[in-house]
Amino acid sequence: MLSKSPLAPEGFPVLPAIPGVELATAATGIRYRGRDDVLLMRFAEGTAVAGVLTRSLTAGAPVVWCREALAGGSARAVLVNAGNANAFTGSKGMESVRRTVKASADQIGCRESEVFIASTGVIGEVLPDEKITAHLGDLAQRLAPHGWEAAARAIMTTDTFHKGASRKARIDGVEVTLNGIAKGSGMIAPDMATMLAFVATDAALPPAVLQRLLTRANDRSFNSITVDGDTSTSDTLLLAATSAAGNAAVEDAADPRLRDFYRALESLLIDLAQQVVRDGEGAQKFVTIEVRGAASARAARRIGLSIANSPLVKTAIAGEDANWGRVVMAVGKAGEKADRDRLSVAIGGVTIAEQGQPVEGYDEAPVAEHMRGRDILIQVDIGIGRGKARVWTCDLTHGYIDINADYRS
Amino acid sequence: MLSKSPLAPEGFPVLPAIPGVELATAATGIRYRGRDDVLLMRFAEGTAVAGVLTRSLTAGAPVVWCREALAGGSARAVLVNAGNANAFTGSKGMESVRRTVKASADQIGCRESEVFIASTGVIGEVLPDEKITAHLGDLAQRLAPHGWEAAARAIMTTDTFHKGASRKARIDGVEVTLNGIAKGSGMIAPDMATMLAFVATDAALPPAVLQRLLTRANDRSFNSITVDGDTSTSDTLLLAATSAAGNAAVEDAADPRLRDFYRALESLLIDLAQQVVRDGEGAQKFVTIEVRGAASARAARRIGLSIANSPLVKTAIAGEDANWGRVVMAVGKAGEKADRDRLSVAIGGVTIAEQGQPVEGYDEAPVAEHMRGRDILIQVDIGIGRGKARVWTCDLTHGYIDINADYRS
Repeated sequence: MLSKSPLAPEGFPVLPAIPGVELATAATGIRYRGRDDVLLMRFAEGTAVAGVLTRSLTAGAPVVWCREALAGGSARAVLVNAGNANAFTGSKGMESVRRTVKASADQIGCRESEVFIASTGVIGEVLPDEKITAHLGDLAQRLAPHGWEAAARAIMTTDTFHKGASRKARIDGVEVTLNGIAKGSGMIAPDMATMLAFVATDAALPPAVLQRLLTRANDRSFNSITVDGDTSTSDTLLLAATSAAGNAAVEDAADPRLRDFYRALESLLIDLAQQVVRDGEGAQKFVTIEVRGAASARAARRIGLSIANSPLVKTAIAGEDANWGRVVMAVGKAGEKADRDRLSVAIGGVTIAEQGQPVEGYDEAPVAEHMRGRDILIQVDIGIGRGKARVWTCDLTHGYIDINADYRS
Repeated sequence: MLSKSPLAPEGFPVLPAIPGVELATAATGIRYRGRDDVLLMRFAEGTAVAGVLTRSLTAGAPVVWCREALAGGSARAVLVNAGNANAFTGSKGMESVRRTVKASADQIGCRESEVFIASTGVIGEVLPDEKITAHLGDLAQRLAPHGWEAAARAIMTTDTFHKGASRKARIDGVEVTLNGIAKGSGMIAPDMATMLAFVATDAALPPAVLQRLLTRANDRSFNSITVDGDTSTSDTLLLAATSAAGNAAVEDAADPRLRDFYRALESLLIDLAQQVVRDGEGAQKFVTIEVRGAASARAARRIGLSIANSPLVKTAIAGEDANWGRVVMAVGKAGEKADRDRLSVAIGGVTIAEQGQPVEGYDEAPVAEHMRGRDILIQVDIGIGRGKARVWTCDLTHGYIDINADYRS
């Protein structure tokens, strides 16, 4: 058992009940002892759903299932297990998913296409789905609206703390609530992280609108974080909207009445994404990288991720060394338009290099002080355009190697 | 001072004199004490040259100069310094290069476009070029044909051993010799490594032919290795041909009379590239990744590099864990065509997963034994085409973090 990340938030936030959402957890013993490792979420009839799934070409069987099911736009259940990813398990993995889906649909009384499955953990081991389905009857009995914190705990794998967030928003004057939980700490990179996140709201929004909002907010949150540049076979982000709040129907994602809801959704996803980074394997420092002056927002994000993924930048941060030369190197390898002689780099708010040259006689003392802290800020101005982006990562430490050189044993 | 890599070759090979090539080294004291840190190579009149340079968009001033000079196709001198990369030094860096080039051209008695400059080391510090040019007269006095091993030593930075290789080949019945030296151990990745390599031969070949052969061989050697996925601002590979061997003119790189020369060149570059990996920062294991069955050779190389660059794969190898699930993950994130259900993975020659599923009851003992060794072989068959590639890397260890969290201090 790993000790809690030094970057963890103070505590778990309050996640209120969301009308139309019930949760229950149980312990299957598949991999872990003495803790819950399976989560069932049930949604009221008429719940719309949207999702973003890993782009990995070796995605796990549950991802393949969710991709099909999302086309239906409707969700009644999410079943999540921790400890076994059911990935690279061939036809047996797919059969296991189908049996789990059927048992869940029978239990809930819904269509199979309304059941979503997510698994994380070890790859390549066949999932003993009977150990999960054996608990379905019991789980359904115990469903309750106040199970969010237990749910956040049940989906953890190598996480050192459980992750949740909640926001309120108004749609056309009607208050709605959004709750989200997430897990993930290694194999974290865009498209997406080894990351599961489940968000539910009582807003009434059609699936197509939900999907547009979710895709945009995901780009600015989970697709803007990285721990190690590795992409999981299991990444799954689902957003379910029960419509219990009874707000007026809004059919266009660009409708100004959705601005506040979008703002809340983006803020919630950034909160969860940052918690994932704060639980990055071996992380000792939380790093924010702000890029501006790039050719486009997309270019800015790619440059930011190139910096955030550089082992040399990350080890320098671990060593509390303001090694801006490595930041320049990472800008140069990003493959996006850059001009060495227009580039500026600031660390902890102090400009260290400007127009392609070190700033002569800059004051190193506040920078050294900043590098000793927990929160590191690196700002890069590419100097050629108006594209900007923010990206979050953590440092690369001995702890990462300890954890990953010894995960299976 | 770091101790010598456990993966280093037994000793430095014999590098014979090459007619038309002379070398000398000196100690400038710019960064290092008690060792030579500058190298001058002089070539006979009529020497042709080809080169491959970093694609970094923040390339150092010497790279910018070499890119221009290569257009001339002719080389009389190479001047290399270790310890200061003269990168991200703005107009001062370029002025420094121009002064060094002019002084060298004056000393050798050649055109400025025939002088090539290479620098590696710390980024962002202005190079005190007067400390280099002050030695030019002395260096020119001491030029001699047998200075290859001293040259290989003088260009080292964080390298723990000096790197060289030599090959013989025949062009239309005439024997020619190729010698090469290289440096590099961190910031190693394709396009290219933080790597300098200088190869010279007495073959008579025009610049255009040299360039074709060099580009191809570079793809299969230096562009097929990675230590940490980071790309330097200074990577430089030069190939000079003095024509002293007097072989018949060959005007077409595809001429069958050049097959043996190409084979020797590729073999020499692979040898040097593997030595760079063997000196990878913190490396404890040398890893060969063979990919076959991909959609194309290019796709195979990208998949191989995705595996080779994965921190999770590299830490698993450091931990002597045959974690093939992470190999699958890295195939999936490469962005090249793959079908989970056709994929096979073998480690140490033992097939562990086949057609997308773990091989039931495979013998773990020889695989565990293999993982404990110094040389690790991972073979992946994508199962969809005929593209293949070989890629080399090392493991990711605590040593890498020790070295890079503390490089500047």
